[in-house]
Amino acid sequence: MSERPRPRDLGVRLGVLPVGLHNAITDVPGVAVGHVSLIEGESVRTGVTAIKTHLGNPFREKTRAAAFVLNGFGKTCGLAQVEELGVLETPILLTGTLNVPRVADGLISWILRQNPDVLSVNPVVGECNDGYLNDIRGRHVREEHVFAAIDGATGGPVEGGVVGAGVGMTCYGFKGGIGTASRRAGDHTLGALVLANFGAKEELRIDGVPVGRELGESREPGDGSCMVILGTDAPVDARQLKRLARRGGLGLARTGSYASHGSGDFILAFSNQHGSMRDEELNPLFQAVVEATEEAVIDALFRAETTRGRDGHVRESLPIEPTLAILRRHRDF
Amino acid sequence: MSERPRPRDLGVRLGVLPVGLHNAITDVPGVAVGHVSLIEGESVRTGVTAIKTHLGNPFREKTRAAAFVLNGFGKTCGLAQVEELGVLETPILLTGTLNVPRVADGLISWILRQNPDVLSVNPVVGECNDGYLNDIRGRHVREEHVFAAIDGATGGPVEGGVVGAGVGMTCYGFKGGIGTASRRAGDHTLGALVLANFGAKEELRIDGVPVGRELGESREPGDGSCMVILGTDAPVDARQLKRLARRGGLGLARTGSYASHGSGDFILAFSNQHGSMRDEELNPLFQAVVEATEEAVIDALFRAETTRGRDGHVRESLPIEPTLAILRRHRDF
Amino acid sequence: MSERPRPRDLGVRLGVLPVGLHNAITDVPGVAVGHVSLIEGESVRTGVTAIKTHLGNPFREKTRAAAFVLNGFGKTCGLAQVEELGVLETPILLTGTLNVPRVADGLISWILRQNPDVLSVNPVVGECNDGYLNDIRGRHVREEHVFAAIDGATGGPVEGGVVGAGVGMTCYGFKGGIGTASRRAGDHTLGALVLANFGAKEELRIDGVPVGRELGESREPGDGSCMVILGTDAPVDARQLKRLARRGGLGLARTGSYASHGSGDFILAFSNQHGSMRDEELNPLFQAVVEATEEAVIDALFRAETTRGRDGHVRESLPIEPTLAILRRHRDF
Amino acid sequence: MSERPRPRDLGVRLGVLPVGLHNAITDVPGVAVGHVSLIEGESVRTGVTAIKTHLGNPFREKTRAAAFVLNGFGKTCGLAQVEELGVLETPILLTGTLNVPRVADGLISWILRQNPDVLSVNPVVGECNDGYLNDIRGRHVREEHVFAAIDGATGGPVEGGVVGAGVGMTCYGFKGGIGTASRRAGDHTLGALVLANFGAKEELRIDGVPVGRELGESREPGDGSCMVILGTDAPVDARQLKRLARRGGLGLARTGSYASHGSGDFILAFSNQHGSMRDEELNPLFQAVVEATEEAVIDALFRAETTRGRDGHVRESLPIEPTLAILRRHRDF
Repeated sequence: MSERPRPRDLGVRLGVLPVGLHNAITDVPGVAVGHVSLIEGESVRTGVTAIKTHLGNPFREKTRAAAFVLNGFGKTCGLAQVEELGVLETPILLTGTLNVPRVADGLISWILRQNPDVLSVNPVVGECNDGYLNDIRGRHVREEHVFAAIDGATGGPVEGGVVGAGVGMTCYGFKGGIGTASRRAGDHTLGALVLANFGAKEELRIDGVPVGRELGESREPGDGSCMVILGTDAPVDARQLKRLARRGGLGLARTGSYASHGSGDFILAFSNQHGSMRDEELNPLFQAVVEATEEAVIDALFRAETTRGRDGHVRESLPIEPTLAILRRHRDF
Repeated sequence: MSERPRPRDLGVRLGVLPVGLHNAITDVPGVAVGHVSLIEGESVRTGVTAIKTHLGNPFREKTRAAAFVLNGFGKTCGLAQVEELGVLETPILLTGTLNVPRVADGLISWILRQNPDVLSVNPVVGECNDGYLNDIRGRHVREEHVFAAIDGATGGPVEGGVVGAGVGMTCYGFKGGIGTASRRAGDHTLGALVLANFGAKEELRIDGVPVGRELGESREPGDGSCMVILGTDAPVDARQLKRLARRGGLGLARTGSYASHGSGDFILAFSNQHGSMRDEELNPLFQAVVEATEEAVIDALFRAETTRGRDGHVRESLPIEPTLAILRRHRDF
Repeated sequence: MSERPRPRDLGVRLGVLPVGLHNAITDVPGVAVGHVSLIEGESVRTGVTAIKTHLGNPFREKTRAAAFVLNGFGKTCGLAQVEELGVLETPILLTGTLNVPRVADGLISWILRQNPDVLSVNPVVGECNDGYLNDIRGRHVREEHVFAAIDGATGGPVEGGVVGAGVGMTCYGFKGGIGTASRRAGDHTLGALVLANFGAKEELRIDGVPVGRELGESREPGDGSCMVILGTDAPVDARQLKRLARRGGLGLARTGSYASHGSGDFILAFSNQHGSMRDEELNPLFQAVVEATEEAVIDALFRAETTRGRDGHVRESLPIEPTLAILRRHRDF
Repeated sequence: MSERPRPRDLGVRLGVLPVGLHNAITDVPGVAVGHVSLIEGESVRTGVTAIKTHLGNPFREKTRAAAFVLNGFGKTCGLAQVEELGVLETPILLTGTLNVPRVADGLISWILRQNPDVLSVNPVVGECNDGYLNDIRGRHVREEHVFAAIDGATGGPVEGGVVGAGVGMTCYGFKGGIGTASRRAGDHTLGALVLANFGAKEELRIDGVPVGRELGESREPGDGSCMVILGTDAPVDARQLKRLARRGGLGLARTGSYASHGSGDFILAFSNQHGSMRDEELNPLFQAVVEATEEAVIDALFRAETTRGRDGHVRESLPIEPTLAILRRHRDF
């Protein structure tokens, strides 16, 4: 587990809304996260992350959901049915690009095992491309890893950085991966979990400060992708969840993203509460989406450690002290 | 191979546009179709169908494409990238619902084998649910079947009925499966291939005649789905292909479909020609979409033979002679 | 008012679901329809039709709604907000193409008059092009006509054919205009009202019978458009209403439409009941959409009388007796 | 005309791409902008802005276009046809919310006058709500104002701030209105023009600096809307223009927007060049969209002067010196 501090531990406060207990998507009651990291030999640097939307049987108790595709250059599966029916019927799985079918197949197995009569299920699996550090063509994730990620999912603090689906990811030229954050929006909680794998170094902004530019010259273009998972206990329906999802991109923009051509940016939002609320009441949730998404990306960067992978490729971690020094020069903290 | 005649062989003419040489999607130059049928023991009744959009390397020479989702209650994968970039980069594969990830994984393998440097690819796989006849939970399709379907794809006549992905399908209460048809639209050809697995018996219409109702009482509700693949050599771009795809549903409607809740109806249209044409010239193609889709569904019904599958389930074929008798009573032919 | 009989009066039964009391959109409790027809001199052949979704103040008690655009080559206004918020806040108005802004402005006036504090409102106005019979460039509809259409709206039987927005329309080469129909779907009612202005003569099908082809040669291509308004008292939400709207095109297809390039085909669905129902219960409503849309188009054709308009243009009515003779030859009634 | 300086005149540099000659949408060759400002008595504070996409007849030479709706709580008209056909056939007009139909009607008149045979045209009119300063219910814009805005459109420097459609607008709690900016992206130019009328004071960021928060307490919530018009001479097609439009929201996010519930945020992108370019080449254009949109909003704020309107309402301008002082404290310039 990453020993590196989270941004808020170091005084980096993004946005103005109050934060949940763990500053994690698991602050939404019932939500659980599990990771399986595959780090083997010189070239296997990949994994699986599972987000359970509630504690029950996901197929029997479906979860309201909607997606927004900011940039569809990606391989996420399962979104057509989410759009049509407005529900999830599986946990949400994240992994490396070419593992998607194997993870989806494992997810089907997990659902079939739990539901002996089921003849159809819509696995939802998102991805980013970990091909720089990982032997992506090897597709090293197997069914047992999927099961372990789902069955090992827990509430409480969420591991971030180089873990689960995040093991092989790169973000703003530094080591990326899993990040999370949460916000209180009135009586409700909204949490974000990102798989951050996008952006060029010089584009990075933290709290608006052009940290990337000041950290020095970039050596390479930033492609890659981002998956944003948003969960809430606000009783919003699928149409409203789509409104939430559409704001996810605004959170990415705050960190510097312009959604480059190669960056498949998908935002998936779910609510595990029934009932309804008025659209006029959504503003705190909208703001929470932007803040939590922004912070989750920065969280991934702070927590991810330098990682060496295939063909001797190395992805350096964000240098914490220089980053804080830049932030201090621009802000008072 | 089915010994049953195709509708046009029996004088059933749907629509008014001229028909291509094989009355098949392969009338579009360069398009090839391959099937692998899995019929094993009492309960394996499934398969794979591959549609190659041209003769070259699909990843290197991408194919313009667009999709329309009439009813998103389905598990087709790969559409987000098609929507974003307007191209296919793999053959289109069809199979039974729970096989989708395994087929997608096999399709990735096929692309990786052909392209040693590729680190990302967007497999497009459509599906219908063959769970009535097939041990669907067993997910019996393996990589070797995917390879065989793609590598065995050919131009010329296309097998239909109980073949490939169509082995376990049901349509309008009768045995369904694969059907195809084509139309000439001015200087261009448009072909349709369907995986037909939808509708209740009493809804079936052939050339507008309520054949299903007259064939007698139905024993069960008609859910299921339909995949419609449209190919053309008209130089239409992705926006125009989406216009074509949107007409696919109108062809299904002519056969009696009201796109029932459980019927995941997806239409995917592609063009393997570069260049451009004006929207004002699209009407013959629109009409061709409706006619070819309509006829492809009826083609599947005519060609599919009675099939026995898991748990003693039997799906009877459309009775040809009574059907023709009904058609003759309503039409002059 | 049209003296011509409606199709069902003559024994033409489309679909199988039971019909509401008036076989009209007004069978949905609370729904009211009003028409103002502008027939002046040689060349003014246009009008306005208003559909009130309930008896209250439409701005204060918003109505759940969703739209599906089968072919967006049209000028309907107001749909972006319907998509975002899932509600209507005005009556739905229909008119000739170039009148849309004037009708929208009149609709704003009507809302402002009724709501002294309102500073924003989203007028929803649909249209078809009546330029063949009408001096469309003259934009002859004024605010007083809009007010009269809305304030004159009533429940009960709905005038059809050459009335309101339908005065100048053409459908399948014959005089078109306003048509309506309704269906009972379980405990609920669904009604359709169409402004029918599309299709070429030879494409027309009635109950699947190729009536247009048998009525003889066509003299002209069929462009034009169709507006389909669907109302129900089923407690469906905006996502589900979009599912209903998507089936409207299937009803048009049954009458022969392939949604030609120039045919702006818009379907707008609303529910004036709160509450919720499960997607699994929607099939009767889906079927009702298809049947009611189909019948509403045929209703418009049966009821519309031959009309002479600008520049001596004449649009002949559908010849009832030959049509019935063709139907009798193909069907038993 | 505003005497206030533009941000770049004061050393405020947003983004990194080079700027066009006038730092305006008119840097795209052929693009022209015209304004008519209505400032009469105590309570008329509204206007019209016209953007011509090229120098020719817009109906005869249609302009490739696409829109993205970030938040559809708005009354923009004409987008359905843009989505379907991928083209504009009129200039783009902007105005206050309730004027949209009158401006659309005037725009139709302008097209009809120019094109004696036209029987159909799709007016595209965007809006924001100027009801705080303006007697919005009065709908004071008339046809003559529309004609004057279009016919007065010119290339070269573009007036900004309290002008045209911007007369009555509010942005981030300060006086808003029209802003513009441009970027060079490789061999191409991309320009943005915004009608900025959104956001609460404390949300405002300039170059990432939380200027709004530091300027002191806010007195009111920020609703309102934003129209973003993007023009380019890059030969992008409608699908690619939609990709560009989707990045417009990211530019708004950089200024602090979270797209509040009441903020109808529409982005409309056009290209006046034929030809084609590869998606792999779009990144500079994507970046240009984000930078130009961001700067156009800030441009509107810098240029807009304090304005008094109906009922004694006053909207103060952004205080330039305190703003610059805050920026200097956080940045080196």
